[in-house]
Amino acid sequence: MYITGIGRTKFGFLEETLPELAYVAISAALKDAEMALEEIEAIYVGNFCAGPTQNQLHLNSLISDILPGVDKPIIRIETACASGGAALYQALLALSRFNNILVIGLEKLNIDPLQAATAIAMAGDRTIDQTEGLIFPASYALIAQQHILRYGTNTDDLTLVSLKNHENANLNEYAHFYNTDIGFKYISESPVVSTPLRLFDCAPLSDGASAVVLSGTKRKEGDIRVIASSLATGNLSLINTKDITSFPAAKKAAHNAYQQAGLTVKDIDVFAVHDCFTIAELVAMEDLGICGPGESASLVREGRTKIKGDIPVNTDGGLKADGHPIGATGLAQVFEIVTQLRGLAGKRQVENAGVGLTHNVGGVGGTAAIHLFERV
Amino acid sequence: MYITGIGRTKFGFLEETLPELAYVAISAALKDAEMALEEIEAIYVGNFCAGPTQNQLHLNSLISDILPGVDKPIIRIETACASGGAALYQALLALSRFNNILVIGLEKLNIDPLQAATAIAMAGDRTIDQTEGLIFPASYALIAQQHILRYGTNTDDLTLVSLKNHENANLNEYAHFYNTDIGFKYISESPVVSTPLRLFDCAPLSDGASAVVLSGTKRKEGDIRVIASSLATGNLSLINTKDITSFPAAKKAAHNAYQQAGLTVKDIDVFAVHDCFTIAELVAMEDLGICGPGESASLVREGRTKIKGDIPVNTDGGLKADGHPIGATGLAQVFEIVTQLRGLAGKRQVENAGVGLTHNVGGVGGTAAIHLFERV
Repeated sequence: MYITGIGRTKFGFLEETLPELAYVAISAALKDAEMALEEIEAIYVGNFCAGPTQNQLHLNSLISDILPGVDKPIIRIETACASGGAALYQALLALSRFNNILVIGLEKLNIDPLQAATAIAMAGDRTIDQTEGLIFPASYALIAQQHILRYGTNTDDLTLVSLKNHENANLNEYAHFYNTDIGFKYISESPVVSTPLRLFDCAPLSDGASAVVLSGTKRKEGDIRVIASSLATGNLSLINTKDITSFPAAKKAAHNAYQQAGLTVKDIDVFAVHDCFTIAELVAMEDLGICGPGESASLVREGRTKIKGDIPVNTDGGLKADGHPIGATGLAQVFEIVTQLRGLAGKRQVENAGVGLTHNVGGVGGTAAIHLFERV
Repeated sequence: MYITGIGRTKFGFLEETLPELAYVAISAALKDAEMALEEIEAIYVGNFCAGPTQNQLHLNSLISDILPGVDKPIIRIETACASGGAALYQALLALSRFNNILVIGLEKLNIDPLQAATAIAMAGDRTIDQTEGLIFPASYALIAQQHILRYGTNTDDLTLVSLKNHENANLNEYAHFYNTDIGFKYISESPVVSTPLRLFDCAPLSDGASAVVLSGTKRKEGDIRVIASSLATGNLSLINTKDITSFPAAKKAAHNAYQQAGLTVKDIDVFAVHDCFTIAELVAMEDLGICGPGESASLVREGRTKIKGDIPVNTDGGLKADGHPIGATGLAQVFEIVTQLRGLAGKRQVENAGVGLTHNVGGVGGTAAIHLFERV
């Protein structure tokens, strides 16, 4: 199983409509794959909340509409913020029947912020969490508080995560926060959203689309092999979670992925993890086994997760600074890892990147999709 | 590939919440499969509009929540009213990796009708159709008008479709319209919704859930073989459709399904088709090749689509009278076909039913999922 084409739009507040964003990303991915649309046998669409935010469900048919003459299987997948990763997971399963598959993730969140917040809250439990105000910034703030209490992590560590990701995004012209001047003080003095999380601990609302083309066989130079595809689910609400500083679904998915690929976390050269909040990057590092519980902050302090460090994490800026157009996010991670493994990441290139990982999470660990990629 | 377990709730206006409905259908399907939850390796969830109607997305995690200890791949599929059929389609593809898979479809529409109508409209094009008022009753009314103009179909034919389905639903204790006295006059004099469609030409809003358990191998007596699984996509809006009396995606999916199974439509003993409106049942019959274009109404007039006829269609009452809890509908069709092929349909049993078909459509033909089943 190979990634043979990748494409994406810039992330940010964009003028383009959903179908326009899709068209740009799909065209770019097909061009990169050197493949005609006619060779695609099935399409998967990752989208989280176009229903509540755009009044548009049935996005598989929308994609059919913009690709004239296509009467192939197109299916929409939704698993909250892991919709892109889950769409990739499904598409890889479908390679048992089809030779070439397109996966497109997209989202538009450039709307009234209260409406966007209401839609995003739908990834969490309705019966208690939403009605009691336990929306995602609040949930992740609780996680951060626990991490601080239990492990001595401090808010400067969170700021350092954000700073690194903003520095990386300045090397990524597609990023929502490309070419911005956001320093330590700017982040650490930004308004408090939910203690201890400040505005710049949170990923932005972004519009955008990303696409990848999969093939059952290697077709050309630069095709990247998928060596593991894993997805696991967990609780919708933190209320049902015993230890909130770790997501069991992410640990399970990581364990399964390493087993599939027959490697350990030490064999991985570059990581794209789901940093919807700065604390989420720390939790991700621990869930993936990059370090033990509570040890992630020290790796950040030592600069080891920077591009030039020995454990580069979120080289594109991550959700924090590349942006978080929810349905597109999981595939943007793939875009970055494939770019790194091809050695085409320019100023943000990780030296000798041979194996990469994507870690895409929905809710507070309710879904975790993990994929491993290898340069061949 | 086999269906080894089926389960469902009654359809109608129900007190139960989404997770409660899911639990009932899942428990029934596992019991019917004689399988423990632990043997299930992956779960697919079909749901259309719980986001806009219940403020609840991320239903895969919701399902994980109600099945304690489950940390397996669970994925939500949404393809408008074909969400159940598409979830089944995906699950069958996933049998390439897993042995036993659960598929659950569910929906709650027992809310403010205007809010429900707004959500359902999201299955259609936002940019023109929704804003200009071309919601689904209007779209299907245009289709009916064209069918009448071109083929001489009349409104009595539509009434006969509804009447047959209500008669069948009276033999189905799960049906939304079980045990009701709805005659020809009641239907043909019901209020006009969109000319020529009247209230009883339209499927109701229903709550409900249905579930099926799939297995790669035959496990026990009563397991039903899946001999074809096909899905195709088409336009989101009628505006882009040349001949609106037929859905190209449904024709394509049917063609592919017949080819996969190596049979023709004449080999099929019982049909479950997507009669969201009475006219849709006629269009379905023609798209499936049961008859030529414009010939469906005469088959209805002659009583040939009744349970005792030679082409039984919608023996459970169809969407019209069994009900239409959108995400659950495609799997309720499977529930009925499996029940028929097992010979357990009681008063509504089709004699010697050996092969059955389900036809599940989203939007105005934007998605079509077709499955064929065989008694073994």
